[in-house]
Amino acid sequence: MPRLVMKFGGTSVADLDRIRNAATRVKREVDRGFDVAVVVSAMAGKTNELVGWVRQTSLLYDAREYDAVVSSGENVTAGLMALTLQEMGVPARSWQGWQVPLRTNASHGSARIVSIDTEALEKKFGEGLHAVIAGFQGLSPEGRITTLGRGGSDTSAVAFAAALGAERCDIYTDVDGVYTTDPRITRKARKLERIAYEEMLELASLGAKVLQTRSVELAMRYKVKLQVLSSFSDVPGTIVCDEEEIMESRVVSGIAHSRDEAKVTVIGVPDRPGIAAALFGALAEGGVNVDMIVQNISADGRTDMTFSCPVDEVPRARVAIDAAKASGALDFTGLDVDEDVSKVSIVGIGMRSQTGVAHRMFQALARDGVNIKVITTSEIKVSVLIDRKYLELAVQALHDAFELEKIS
Amino acid sequence: MPRLVMKFGGTSVADLDRIRNAATRVKREVDRGFDVAVVVSAMAGKTNELVGWVRQTSLLYDAREYDAVVSSGENVTAGLMALTLQEMGVPARSWQGWQVPLRTNASHGSARIVSIDTEALEKKFGEGLHAVIAGFQGLSPEGRITTLGRGGSDTSAVAFAAALGAERCDIYTDVDGVYTTDPRITRKARKLERIAYEEMLELASLGAKVLQTRSVELAMRYKVKLQVLSSFSDVPGTIVCDEEEIMESRVVSGIAHSRDEAKVTVIGVPDRPGIAAALFGALAEGGVNVDMIVQNISADGRTDMTFSCPVDEVPRARVAIDAAKASGALDFTGLDVDEDVSKVSIVGIGMRSQTGVAHRMFQALARDGVNIKVITTSEIKVSVLIDRKYLELAVQALHDAFELEKIS
Repeated sequence: MPRLVMKFGGTSVADLDRIRNAATRVKREVDRGFDVAVVVSAMAGKTNELVGWVRQTSLLYDAREYDAVVSSGENVTAGLMALTLQEMGVPARSWQGWQVPLRTNASHGSARIVSIDTEALEKKFGEGLHAVIAGFQGLSPEGRITTLGRGGSDTSAVAFAAALGAERCDIYTDVDGVYTTDPRITRKARKLERIAYEEMLELASLGAKVLQTRSVELAMRYKVKLQVLSSFSDVPGTIVCDEEEIMESRVVSGIAHSRDEAKVTVIGVPDRPGIAAALFGALAEGGVNVDMIVQNISADGRTDMTFSCPVDEVPRARVAIDAAKASGALDFTGLDVDEDVSKVSIVGIGMRSQTGVAHRMFQALARDGVNIKVITTSEIKVSVLIDRKYLELAVQALHDAFELEKIS
Repeated sequence: MPRLVMKFGGTSVADLDRIRNAATRVKREVDRGFDVAVVVSAMAGKTNELVGWVRQTSLLYDAREYDAVVSSGENVTAGLMALTLQEMGVPARSWQGWQVPLRTNASHGSARIVSIDTEALEKKFGEGLHAVIAGFQGLSPEGRITTLGRGGSDTSAVAFAAALGAERCDIYTDVDGVYTTDPRITRKARKLERIAYEEMLELASLGAKVLQTRSVELAMRYKVKLQVLSSFSDVPGTIVCDEEEIMESRVVSGIAHSRDEAKVTVIGVPDRPGIAAALFGALAEGGVNVDMIVQNISADGRTDMTFSCPVDEVPRARVAIDAAKASGALDFTGLDVDEDVSKVSIVGIGMRSQTGVAHRMFQALARDGVNIKVITTSEIKVSVLIDRKYLELAVQALHDAFELEKIS
């Protein structure tokens, strides 16, 4: 029988009524003839509560115990979902990570999946027993419980879909798909029928919070067809798939934004080899997630280095840069920090074959008087840093310029 | 190194402050040189919440899923306790039932312990790592999670104490020991310094809710010295031990009561062999927990059969008796049900060697005008059924008659 993985996030299993609603959707697919593996998150809020307790016990907590505590939320939902399915006449049983087992490495708190033994699970499929799997968790080589990092249930679901050769992996959430941009910014935002893995990957890492980035990478690697859809409505969702499966080519598929960015310029750095390594080495050690990097033209043997990072990491960046200066590793004459910037990006696989896309973007922004502070590009993406006050204006202007309201 | 098992009930680990308080007690024993195995219950209220959710999914729920859901509460506490101990400088790790493993039979919801593999745990003791064990749970032959029935963490604790050859098993709870009777009924109630297993067993099954009956049975069988004590005070608790270890012999050690009993008399039953089997067989099948049984003198080939049971099981008893009559298995002329009775019992190993104890009991009750409806005795116990309104009076009278306020 064909197999389907259905993943329900925390808001979709937040209470018993919602679990029943999710179970109804599972039953529908069972009735269509699928062997279904349901992957569940913890009830909404549960994981935060457990994480809060762990953090209160200790600042430097043992990640193995963190995992033992935090994984319990998914176990509860898995059992309740199995019971609810049984009550609806769908034979099902729950599986905890160690029971499958889903094996991971020993990186507690953000473990990587090593393998999934699907034998026992497939044997039960053979007996007509559908599977309800506690997401987010696995078994370490030492026989201890691991977790895959926040949002890890998406990754669990994709990994099971790959291991089981599932026809599709449906990710049920509280939005009904992937949109051309944030619908709260423009009513013209349209739901995409399909999106390519690479586009989704860019959008995910650019701040569209629909899917965990790792799960998209995994889906792309193993060619798992993903569908993002709502557990609260019956409209079709967005299919995330190979670009070959997307008929009409689009130059730009979506516009992502990241509101709370900061731009830091280190002024008057000696323009000599190794200086970038010194600066960004110090920032990496200081735990600063540097995003965009620009180096200005040199003058008088000195140059300016500009980078962006999340605004709440600015204090850490200052500490790291000052420490590097104090140690003699880095020399500079001044620091310019702008904490009121946002990043706006256009993403589309069509950019690869079409020229002038960046130009159209800059024109559209210029037309509305939006000044660009920093630019970076990749093969399928152009990002700009702008004053935060222009964020909504810029997103709307770009959405219009690339005619995204005409997309479907 | 000598070993100690310390078990903390739900009220002793109800929140992070209480877990810290419990951990302080563990540290004290570690500092005294013990290898400690801490057995924890779920935070107070947690198990009830989980059981409630399971019951809402289905009336006839799958006990395997019940166990998967309900066992999660202990996992949370075990991890948090391990973290808290680590923070206090006590090396510790958590163990879930399947990790030890503690093996049980497949009777989900009320599984019996089959064996405990202590090898991995003892190896960790050798590395200086104390154990925090999730109570109440085990692993079935099929590799699924089982639970030991309500209050099962006591049983887990005693089983670990036996398997590890622990010097003592300390049961921390919200009372500071075992009392001669319920202190809410008489201020003269005294805490016992020591009590024999058999006495504790009678008191436990007679309604003193300090320890799960099964845990006392297990302690008696494996000669595990138990101590019942409070996690909220520093006074010594009550030691439950072999009667040889109790110096001064006492005729009566305690007075137990069970408030909500019913007395049912089946009138005019034919006085012939097999009739008791027919009646009590029907009651057993109907799920009625029959306690005391009395058969009256026969007259005209007919007799009356009287039994007691918990008052909330009377409807079930009526159904079972009527069904037995309808099927022709049982004949009788009438049914007399008294739902306003209570049971009071005196318990003491000294009764074995001393005569006249029951007589002293009946005299004391008669002196205060308490009418006795049914009497049963065992080697170390005399129980009477009385009108509920006399319950407190009877307990106080017996406490005085046997001078239990002088016990220590």
